[in-house]
Amino acid sequence: MTTLEKAQKASQARTLLGTLDHATKNRALGAIIKALQDNRQAIVAANQEDLEQAEKKQLAAPLLKRLKFDDQKIEEVCEGLASLIKLPDPVGNVMNALELDRGLELFKVSSPIGVIGVIFESRPDALVQIASLCLKSGNAVLLKGGHEAAATNQILADTISRAAIQEGAPQGWLGLMETRIDVEDLLGMSDLVDLIVPRGSNEFVKHIMRNTTIPVLGHADGICHVYVDREADLDMAVRISQDSKCQYVAVCNAAETLLVHANAARAFLPSMKATFDTHGVEMRGCERTAGIVDVLPATEKDWKTEYLDLVISIKIVDSLAAAIDHVNTYGSGHTDVIVTDDRQRAVQFMDRVDSADVFVNCSSRFSDGFRFGLGAEVGISTNKIHARGPVGLEGLMIYKWRLLGNGHIVADYAGKNARPFTHRDLKLDD
Amino acid sequence: MTTLEKAQKASQARTLLGTLDHATKNRALGAIIKALQDNRQAIVAANQEDLEQAEKKQLAAPLLKRLKFDDQKIEEVCEGLASLIKLPDPVGNVMNALELDRGLELFKVSSPIGVIGVIFESRPDALVQIASLCLKSGNAVLLKGGHEAAATNQILADTISRAAIQEGAPQGWLGLMETRIDVEDLLGMSDLVDLIVPRGSNEFVKHIMRNTTIPVLGHADGICHVYVDREADLDMAVRISQDSKCQYVAVCNAAETLLVHANAARAFLPSMKATFDTHGVEMRGCERTAGIVDVLPATEKDWKTEYLDLVISIKIVDSLAAAIDHVNTYGSGHTDVIVTDDRQRAVQFMDRVDSADVFVNCSSRFSDGFRFGLGAEVGISTNKIHARGPVGLEGLMIYKWRLLGNGHIVADYAGKNARPFTHRDLKLDD
Repeated sequence: MTTLEKAQKASQARTLLGTLDHATKNRALGAIIKALQDNRQAIVAANQEDLEQAEKKQLAAPLLKRLKFDDQKIEEVCEGLASLIKLPDPVGNVMNALELDRGLELFKVSSPIGVIGVIFESRPDALVQIASLCLKSGNAVLLKGGHEAAATNQILADTISRAAIQEGAPQGWLGLMETRIDVEDLLGMSDLVDLIVPRGSNEFVKHIMRNTTIPVLGHADGICHVYVDREADLDMAVRISQDSKCQYVAVCNAAETLLVHANAARAFLPSMKATFDTHGVEMRGCERTAGIVDVLPATEKDWKTEYLDLVISIKIVDSLAAAIDHVNTYGSGHTDVIVTDDRQRAVQFMDRVDSADVFVNCSSRFSDGFRFGLGAEVGISTNKIHARGPVGLEGLMIYKWRLLGNGHIVADYAGKNARPFTHRDLKLDD
Repeated sequence: MTTLEKAQKASQARTLLGTLDHATKNRALGAIIKALQDNRQAIVAANQEDLEQAEKKQLAAPLLKRLKFDDQKIEEVCEGLASLIKLPDPVGNVMNALELDRGLELFKVSSPIGVIGVIFESRPDALVQIASLCLKSGNAVLLKGGHEAAATNQILADTISRAAIQEGAPQGWLGLMETRIDVEDLLGMSDLVDLIVPRGSNEFVKHIMRNTTIPVLGHADGICHVYVDREADLDMAVRISQDSKCQYVAVCNAAETLLVHANAARAFLPSMKATFDTHGVEMRGCERTAGIVDVLPATEKDWKTEYLDLVISIKIVDSLAAAIDHVNTYGSGHTDVIVTDDRQRAVQFMDRVDSADVFVNCSSRFSDGFRFGLGAEVGISTNKIHARGPVGLEGLMIYKWRLLGNGHIVADYAGKNARPFTHRDLKLDD
């Protein structure tokens, strides 16, 4: 089947999929759990194939670890599915109810977006998570996983798709794309696809954003900052900076730049350097930083670089305003942290930094759907509309307006003897 | 000033603008009311200039009427401003509050989007409305009005901008663009502009959507349907169809296609035709329609056409499913109506029609921000993300995540002895 045919099928499927009742969707999720467990051996065998290929190609160890999908991983995704079943139905919630006039009642009701295209890294558990989130939210989905996981993705997609269809999901609700060319094709299908969620490398996400008119939910860069204010607990500042940089360097919410208020620099930087040295972090500092501790020189380019590595750039600033300005100029609107004892300055930082996540006295690494209590995470967004920061199920939802009348026409509400609207809030029963 | 400079100024202004407190924003809105009233004579004189030019160019009467901005219009926009002052501050609302762990608290807080570009028709009242909505919501704004209103727009923008700045709004919060070329320039400024709201002709909106990577909030086509079901009050169906088509033909929420269930066609179409004839509506029907009443033939093209005129296409369908399929195939996801006595079929129509507004037994013309009780309307959106249907102030808002800790780091919540998260809802006081 071509990508176009898959997208057409998904687009047809969404009408029925969006109207499945909660019990049916949950039965389908239950059937997926059972099918994954029943097909355990075949799934692990397919993953072995992928792993052998990947080892031959000398894939790096962390990537091999992500690629691995064994009994334990299957158990984990099944636990995830079980908790998804317990979540309330995101479709059909009445968000507002307003009487416009007697017998003319308006309801704002949550509804699926339609067809979602998701492109993700070589992590088979991501396929299960995304497919199940889309099913629960009534969205048809077109998936493209990393090619290293091709065999695993194929059997997972088949297993999941079939199990859901047996419980009443429409044919074509889940389509699996196989090549990069399929993705390029998808980018042109704005008539059929309503949202693209790209996960993966910066370059790739940027490429997607530049080459489609379909809305994209995601982030390209994650240039996150920790700013140590003039009145800060410096031990805390060291701990938070170290965690933000080192706890997991290869991710978007790791810190890349440390900003230090001039008044705190002399007391802070030496102990910060001792800690970074212990953890093997390369420090690149501005001239003033170099005047206090021994660091490599930072250039303009460093402020714009997402290292995703044990490297950090450091700049001394003269004021809170200068710190905010640096963050808004060089940051990527992802996650930025202030360490301060001054509550008012903390609020100013949170008000003025134009980022999805603005944190006070804690690590940038908390920026994550699971930690935020959102349940499964669709991705992290640096968009300025729709959904921002860690995005859970609600990022896959939109709403419809339902207006129920009894022969009401607008002519009665216009002109000289216009009837007035009542615009009376209707108490919701639930 | 070039458009780039205006956009840079707006982008600088947004940081402060987004943090203005409610009282300051309301004082600024009050100052705008006063300035409009004080400058009444100069504004009306500028508008006279525009009107004279427009008359020379023989602008059509309805356009002249929209262009006119006299004492009464000034009074009306000032009333609008007064009601906007009464609305609550949309910025800084805590939408969610969650304890992640002791002393680590997460708040989802509403915030402005940033810089909004709005392109609108030659209606000076639209400038006042949009500028004031942006001010209230803490968004900087770049405006481009129809060139017929150039002189009026200039004095209005100056008056509004200056009055707000005197009360504490930052320089550059409102920029006025003057030419089409300015708009083309704007489309490339995705680093500075966060959202574009184009109002105006289909072709123009489509052009914008095709030529920018900045998110666009709006609608191109408004191909709205009225479907008369097999069990419908036929008098009501005639009344609703007539209102949907004729109450105001030149707008996006007017009906363009009438779908009629085969069982109702013989009883319904003759009286519908009598009514449409009275109102001078040209009917273009499918072959089966032509077998019942005297109509011009409809072609495939008619199902895809937004007439914005006293013309309607008519098709007989054999089932509710066929009606839904027609709407989802040819419609524009704007507003679609079912007239039916069968509640279950009404629900099925609302569930399955993939449009912003799905109405039962009332006119498509109700699809409007004022009628929906949203206060002022930013526009109508057929987007599938962010905001759908009539969009009020909330369409100019997004949110930030604020996380307040006390030295919390992620390492404590990872690995073998990981601390669990509490994820406990915090009761909101307000």
